Amino acid sequence: MGKKRVMVPAENVDLSSVKYQQEDIQAPHLTGFVFRLFVRILEAPFIGSLIISILKKQNKMVEILRNTVIPEAPMFKPEFPPQETEHGVLLLDEDGRPEGRVESALKCLPHYDPAASWDGNSTSSFRYWKIRDYAYAYRSRLASPSVVAEHIISAIEEFSGKKPPTPLLISFEAEDVRKQAAASTQRFEEGNPLSILDGIFMAIKDDIDCYPHPSKGATTWMHEVRSVKKDAACVSRLRSCGVILIGKANMHELGMGTTGNNPNYGTTRNPHAPERYTGGSSSGPAAIVASGLCSAALGTDGGGSVRIPSSLCGVVGLKTTYGRTEMTGSICDSGTVEIIGPMASTVEDVMLVYAAMLGSSPADKISLKPSPPCLPNLSTFNDSNALGSLRLGKYSPWFNDVFSTEVSDRCEDVLNQLCKSHGCETIEIVIPELHEMRTAHIVSIGSESLCSLNPEIEDGKGVKLTYDTRTNMALFATYTASDYVAAQCLRRRLMYYHMEIFKKVDVIVTPTTGMTAPIIPPSALKDGETNLQVSGYLMRFVVTANLLGLPAISVPIGYDKQGLPIGLQLIGRPWGEATILRLASAVEELNMNSKKRPVSYYDVLKAS
Amino acid sequence: MGKKRVMVPAENVDLSSVKYQQEDIQAPHLTGFVFRLFVRILEAPFIGSLIISILKKQNKMVEILRNTVIPEAPMFKPEFPPQETEHGVLLLDEDGRPEGRVESALKCLPHYDPAASWDGNSTSSFRYWKIRDYAYAYRSRLASPSVVAEHIISAIEEFSGKKPPTPLLISFEAEDVRKQAAASTQRFEEGNPLSILDGIFMAIKDDIDCYPHPSKGATTWMHEVRSVKKDAACVSRLRSCGVILIGKANMHELGMGTTGNNPNYGTTRNPHAPERYTGGSSSGPAAIVASGLCSAALGTDGGGSVRIPSSLCGVVGLKTTYGRTEMTGSICDSGTVEIIGPMASTVEDVMLVYAAMLGSSPADKISLKPSPPCLPNLSTFNDSNALGSLRLGKYSPWFNDVFSTEVSDRCEDVLNQLCKSHGCETIEIVIPELHEMRTAHIVSIGSESLCSLNPEIEDGKGVKLTYDTRTNMALFATYTASDYVAAQCLRRRLMYYHMEIFKKVDVIVTPTTGMTAPIIPPSALKDGETNLQVSGYLMRFVVTANLLGLPAISVPIGYDKQGLPIGLQLIGRPWGEATILRLASAVEELNMNSKKRPVSYYDVLKAS
Repeated sequence: MGKKRVMVPAENVDLSSVKYQQEDIQAPHLTGFVFRLFVRILEAPFIGSLIISILKKQNKMVEILRNTVIPEAPMFKPEFPPQETEHGVLLLDEDGRPEGRVESALKCLPHYDPAASWDGNSTSSFRYWKIRDYAYAYRSRLASPSVVAEHIISAIEEFSGKKPPTPLLISFEAEDVRKQAAASTQRFEEGNPLSILDGIFMAIKDDIDCYPHPSKGATTWMHEVRSVKKDAACVSRLRSCGVILIGKANMHELGMGTTGNNPNYGTTRNPHAPERYTGGSSSGPAAIVASGLCSAALGTDGGGSVRIPSSLCGVVGLKTTYGRTEMTGSICDSGTVEIIGPMASTVEDVMLVYAAMLGSSPADKISLKPSPPCLPNLSTFNDSNALGSLRLGKYSPWFNDVFSTEVSDRCEDVLNQLCKSHGCETIEIVIPELHEMRTAHIVSIGSESLCSLNPEIEDGKGVKLTYDTRTNMALFATYTASDYVAAQCLRRRLMYYHMEIFKKVDVIVTPTTGMTAPIIPPSALKDGETNLQVSGYLMRFVVTANLLGLPAISVPIGYDKQGLPIGLQLIGRPWGEATILRLASAVEELNMNSKKRPVSYYDVLKAS
Repeated sequence: MGKKRVMVPAENVDLSSVKYQQEDIQAPHLTGFVFRLFVRILEAPFIGSLIISILKKQNKMVEILRNTVIPEAPMFKPEFPPQETEHGVLLLDEDGRPEGRVESALKCLPHYDPAASWDGNSTSSFRYWKIRDYAYAYRSRLASPSVVAEHIISAIEEFSGKKPPTPLLISFEAEDVRKQAAASTQRFEEGNPLSILDGIFMAIKDDIDCYPHPSKGATTWMHEVRSVKKDAACVSRLRSCGVILIGKANMHELGMGTTGNNPNYGTTRNPHAPERYTGGSSSGPAAIVASGLCSAALGTDGGGSVRIPSSLCGVVGLKTTYGRTEMTGSICDSGTVEIIGPMASTVEDVMLVYAAMLGSSPADKISLKPSPPCLPNLSTFNDSNALGSLRLGKYSPWFNDVFSTEVSDRCEDVLNQLCKSHGCETIEIVIPELHEMRTAHIVSIGSESLCSLNPEIEDGKGVKLTYDTRTNMALFATYTASDYVAAQCLRRRLMYYHMEIFKKVDVIVTPTTGMTAPIIPPSALKDGETNLQVSGYLMRFVVTANLLGLPAISVPIGYDKQGLPIGLQLIGRPWGEATILRLASAVEELNMNSKKRPVSYYDVLKAS
């Protein structure tokens, strides 16, 4: 009795009285034997659900979802108010051929000067080869896709031989890569490349279908119950542009973790510090791009899974608006928070890949009514004018709630630079109910994942999952249907707050992650680990874009004292990819001269 | 192991191999002491959930929701493909004044001949006074709203004095009715009635706000935690047309039952047979209209709650398309299956009330994109032409799966008459997965109800609910979040099947209920009862329209041998109220001369 809490309607909440609540996650850090034991207890009848109910109570889940009167109706999927078209953008034809969109995207880019890349003297600091560098090399016969393919194949094989195994890829067939590269090489010889992406090497996260590879989602069994007969929709669009798909990139099992720890296939190492995690769940895609093996990769992002590893590995990762990129042909094709997004070493390359792969599914076109996709026109880029009107929203107590102030300080520096050199304006905002947002997000993604896995778990596959995933599943199984509905009521409140904020600002800025790459405990390699404190820091700023379906990008802005990459996150309005890409490009330019060569780097273009 | 069932995608299901599965509900019928004991056991830890899990297993809920691979993505709310405007209809201005819409609706009706009603000799069989009869009487000074009000007040008071108490209304204030009637009478005296609905008496179900009455939802405590400060949106529209609102009509507690049994305020008796149920949950609204006390009433329909009592009491009840009628100001304002709909003695009166009350909420206008509301133009009604093109879909094994074949035979007769005299065509259809539909519906409505009640239950109000509601709550509390998501995947499948069916037919026809009004076991009056067999027959045909958000209407088509009303249900395309209203009007005309005067009938217009 007397436990009832009553929320006032979102529009009546007095923002001036909102106090930031530091996140305080109550859960043990477990590895090795203790972790294995813990999972078995969790899975036991009665005692397991008792422990979980204590953990949930400590994290206020029951209070939020069952004892609170939430006046809003549920919002089961992101529902956006109609959006104005962004300024200074180029519209892309969503229903046209991907090659055509890539052609349009090229027109958005600044003039390409081969000398800047190929002289080798223009800049003293490290830089990655860009897609246009490869394109120039192929067209001017400085290199061929087949030659580059051989360099990549050797590098991958070198990785596979390492001990403990740290595979970048879960599925790889050298012959398939050679075949694709040969076809591309021939197109160049005949003078008929398919697009600027022809001969560009990409990796696909293991939960997105890429024929003829299996999709295991980093499990040991998913391919036995789910066969792959063709490319996922977005992969097929890339292939039609001539992209060479090298295989299925490593990931945290089923995407259910933020570190990239993987007892099944080995844990991917951070190219900047091999004793550290890449972040996850798109660990392989981030590491492959960061180590220079591929120009770009596709990841999935249901709870930061593209942005977290991009931030920790120092690459650019775009989480698209919910529904912008089609999920057909991915393992998690029916959730309300997950998208497929591109990762690359530069904003320019992210734009090219994004242009090729985007396109809503027919069902989403009906139910979500997407605004047309756009790109910022960087070719007429006049920085002070183009960005001068941009208002950057910053919720300082949240922004500063990080593990190391090096992260928030560096992000702050970049904002100050943007204001100084580009005339942006930083505006202090207040975002209420961030703890409720995390709760609504975990209940949504957890319940939706469990729903699709239930038939397999009940069929005996549950015990073949990693201990980490089993911990999550045991937790998710305790969510009730009414918890799920209550979480959706919270989603409507949080959408209201954010749409109000976006009346005052154009972009919300945060660090991407609250910490740089964490150390891999050696005891966690074999059986994984549960460390909700680390998860909390890694996910602190990312779930807004998932729960509310907003576009967001992580862009590298330098390094901490240990030389580990720091990422800045820009969250945009619904369907507002163009604005955050434009701003990310400006941020990137500010940081162009501070790039550091990763410890593990392969120059596959010039290797010979 | 080996429990996994895999569904093929809905579009690949071979309809020719679908076999109708007779519904076989495994649950005891309990009343009195045994029922009270049963509820306490259900609510006990461990043993309660054990019993429920056995019941759920028998009804295949676990098999359907957890062991089955459902290839479809969840559809959390009805999502409709774009619809063509119906033929021969009159568009109503959804955003205009309700009085204006009622004016338009009047133009749709056939010529009004006062002699037909007022001579008293034109037809030998019983008929109810229509709204236009009242309107004529007021305008020609044959009666005044104040005089009619007094007749109604005496009748209501007569009911309240009965033993056991069988109140038609849960909240009633004679003075408030007198005040409204006096204001209306004065408008007529001044020659300024607000609309054809001025001075028309209506009752509002107790879960829809009608100021100054409390909204208890037939509980003993809801008004203590939820205050009413103004009319619900649709009630306010009626009031602005001059409707006189007599009070809050009785109902099954919280709408969670199909009989209208009510231990809190007394069980409403069927005006055609006082020892029998009215059906529910809108028991009071149906009885008030059937007994002639009010021209119309508003009910809510989340699982047949408007149509079931309309069928059992011999009146017309319209379940509108999901989102067509605004839920703001009702107790269940945030579910995905429930609507507010009008009940009246004739199709014509349903049309007038529907025209006044309709209008989507701003949020639904964005997310559901409703087709504009229409009415059939009956004033130019040329029966053979207007209906000649209508194709009526009938799934015979389902249609005939009733408690008494009198019900299906009578429905069949009417279809044959429609084909013969109006040139309609009956087309045999197949509807797969009806058991899955029932499962998806109960999980949806149960979880959504529990979500809004949870804070009150946890706050100590749970034990103040009736045993019937507590049984339901104990069941609903066992649904997991992943069950809820799986139910939504089933919703998408079932939507697909029905949209395919509506390519071939214009209307789906069924009996409204599988049985006529059941007897009230005297032992069930004090503490209620659980009788899932009866619920099964009453709900057999109604949940399609709730789960899929389709419009449906129940229209009386005569009586069984015991003199109990039989209803025919017409299910329409999304937003297709006009077509089912047109067809219902033709059905009504065929049955006009077989109307029977209810045992409990008050002629409040001519009583003096």
